[in-house]
Amino acid sequence: MSLPGPLAGVTILDLTRVLAGPYATLLLADLGARVIKVERPGVGDDARRIGPFVAGRSAYFESVNRGKQSIALDLRDPGDREVFEKLLARSDVLVENFRPGALERLGYGWDTLHERFPRLVHAATSGFGQTGPYAQRPAYDLVVQALGGLMSVTGQPGGPPTRVGTSIGDLAAGLFTALGVAAALLHRERTGEAIQVDVAMLDCQVALLENALARLLATGETPGPLGARHPSITPFDAFRTADGHVVIAAGHDALFATACEVLGRAELARDPRFATNELRTRNEAALKAELEGALGRDSTQHWLAKLSAAGIPCAPIQNVAQVLADPQVAARNMIVELAEPGDAPRGAAGTEAGPPRLRTAGNPIKLSAFPDPPVRPPAPDLDADAKRIRSELG
Amino acid sequence: MSLPGPLAGVTILDLTRVLAGPYATLLLADLGARVIKVERPGVGDDARRIGPFVAGRSAYFESVNRGKQSIALDLRDPGDREVFEKLLARSDVLVENFRPGALERLGYGWDTLHERFPRLVHAATSGFGQTGPYAQRPAYDLVVQALGGLMSVTGQPGGPPTRVGTSIGDLAAGLFTALGVAAALLHRERTGEAIQVDVAMLDCQVALLENALARLLATGETPGPLGARHPSITPFDAFRTADGHVVIAAGHDALFATACEVLGRAELARDPRFATNELRTRNEAALKAELEGALGRDSTQHWLAKLSAAGIPCAPIQNVAQVLADPQVAARNMIVELAEPGDAPRGAAGTEAGPPRLRTAGNPIKLSAFPDPPVRPPAPDLDADAKRIRSELG
Repeated sequence: MSLPGPLAGVTILDLTRVLAGPYATLLLADLGARVIKVERPGVGDDARRIGPFVAGRSAYFESVNRGKQSIALDLRDPGDREVFEKLLARSDVLVENFRPGALERLGYGWDTLHERFPRLVHAATSGFGQTGPYAQRPAYDLVVQALGGLMSVTGQPGGPPTRVGTSIGDLAAGLFTALGVAAALLHRERTGEAIQVDVAMLDCQVALLENALARLLATGETPGPLGARHPSITPFDAFRTADGHVVIAAGHDALFATACEVLGRAELARDPRFATNELRTRNEAALKAELEGALGRDSTQHWLAKLSAAGIPCAPIQNVAQVLADPQVAARNMIVELAEPGDAPRGAAGTEAGPPRLRTAGNPIKLSAFPDPPVRPPAPDLDADAKRIRSELG
Repeated sequence: MSLPGPLAGVTILDLTRVLAGPYATLLLADLGARVIKVERPGVGDDARRIGPFVAGRSAYFESVNRGKQSIALDLRDPGDREVFEKLLARSDVLVENFRPGALERLGYGWDTLHERFPRLVHAATSGFGQTGPYAQRPAYDLVVQALGGLMSVTGQPGGPPTRVGTSIGDLAAGLFTALGVAAALLHRERTGEAIQVDVAMLDCQVALLENALARLLATGETPGPLGARHPSITPFDAFRTADGHVVIAAGHDALFATACEVLGRAELARDPRFATNELRTRNEAALKAELEGALGRDSTQHWLAKLSAAGIPCAPIQNVAQVLADPQVAARNMIVELAEPGDAPRGAAGTEAGPPRLRTAGNPIKLSAFPDPPVRPPAPDLDADAKRIRSELG
């Protein structure tokens, strides 16, 4: 049932719901771990009811729960608790994204877990972490994007508030949680000691502030949104062409000179206003007007061909449909198909007949020793694996 | 020299430059690995010359290279190659972000490395990966944000192109690389086998598309930017108040009803246009007008207090200066100080005298068995640790 990978043989008991936690355990499943999703009987993960739906199945739920198993257990029911505790005894990691304290109230706080199951790693992903004055507050992606400063540097200067268009508040926390779990498993393998991993969505936003934090701390100036441009590298922006936009990242003098030449404006590289990166950044608006004057004379495709041939880092702004059709994305197996439940294994995407399957993003961690299957197991129906899981418990 | 952590005793030889690779090895250093940065003699990592600068030191460079060691080696010089190979023999992981093929040309391709140093894990982070038609193209953060679809869903509807205001193209690749390395180290610990980890910035953008991909695949409609709102949860947006904005994430009917009550508009929850999440999403503009009508009568602080007290997930849109002053961010030790080179260890931030130190983001992975020091070692000067590293090689 598990995918081949470096975490083969690792069993993860997964109490997480919706996004940050399930994304963490998806990443671990993609690395070969067996993930057993423990869900509320009759209800299951709330994400099962979040659209869009395809043939009655949530594409949203599928995309972060593919390849996992499901068992429905009521953690307040004595019989189900017994099953849960047998699972804890056989698992390597418990991952949950309850609000801090909820697991303690069920009798499964870290101290208890660690005493009863000394080899069990516990990963807790939450909005604000297990400690601090906000620990009990509710958090959603939008809340941590807003509080963590990311929204303050995203958008147009003077424009309305802009959220990163993907749930980076959740996804970043999922990534850091998965990394913490992998590191904790290595530590346990080498020392025998199991540890608790505490990851907060808000903390992860701070960890991604990158040069915005450095700029404030170095200069005292509070960074604001800059549209598509880089705060300290110029030209590094989206520019208007005759029929759309092109992004150009000409990060140093030589690339800038070449770009100017390709645009038929070689003299710009000799203009004293644009002589160094610092001057170009200071005179960014004037430079942009000059470059767009040239770029506006032809199409995005025309300029991409000419700039690419000259070695200038550039790109079209692709929409999601264009991403799906991108040959590099295909060559890297970054869009995988999901087998239907009960589906017999089929070949690679498109090579065999059958109704179109759901597709989701693949695994960006490519490993020399392991295959990267183009068709993956789907997400489980609620409680789908209960019989098999219970039978293993003896 | 290394921080305490689950990767204690792991040595990482780090050939990476600028951002994606250095961010990966920063994450590994924060987990306890010893990271030896191998830099070009006399020049070093290009990020050393990227501003902003504080007292001649790049705050940008410091923020992703704190806690590492540096040795300058010319990988074309026979004597330096000998030192490098001794280091390879004693290291657990080689991380690099050259363009594919560059390491082969230096004689250190994966096949050679694996044969000569069978316990060495090799992690390659690149713009497009080691394979596929774009493998040799140059990439920068902006290029992969544009190609990968993230820019197409970020920004205002109909507005100009908008980049995520932090280098998520680089940072995401750093996170996936670190996760791949940790998983590979676990695999090696358990099986003795070292593997190669190949992570592409573009692939990582696709892996973060989340519901944008699900929406397109499920509905055939290409997602576009939505400002600050969520595509399928309403209200989940930034709203104007009398003096600014507040974000509100009232993800289900009960929260919505409570929010309406707090705003003095209880009747909205009974309005047939807003009876379900699906209807609220369909009538999002009308609902936003109603909610802003109410919110516009008082300040952001007023509404935050009232909404929070009622348990509604909400937040101000904090700028980076406000993030630095946030009590939760402080309680979680998410802003750490960097000791000056040669600085004697001091206590926690602000508790002792001395000139203000550089500060950077801390480690969001909090682990029960390890301290989370509020003062961390700084980034190394170029070649600062050469003598000590060479002396260890015998």
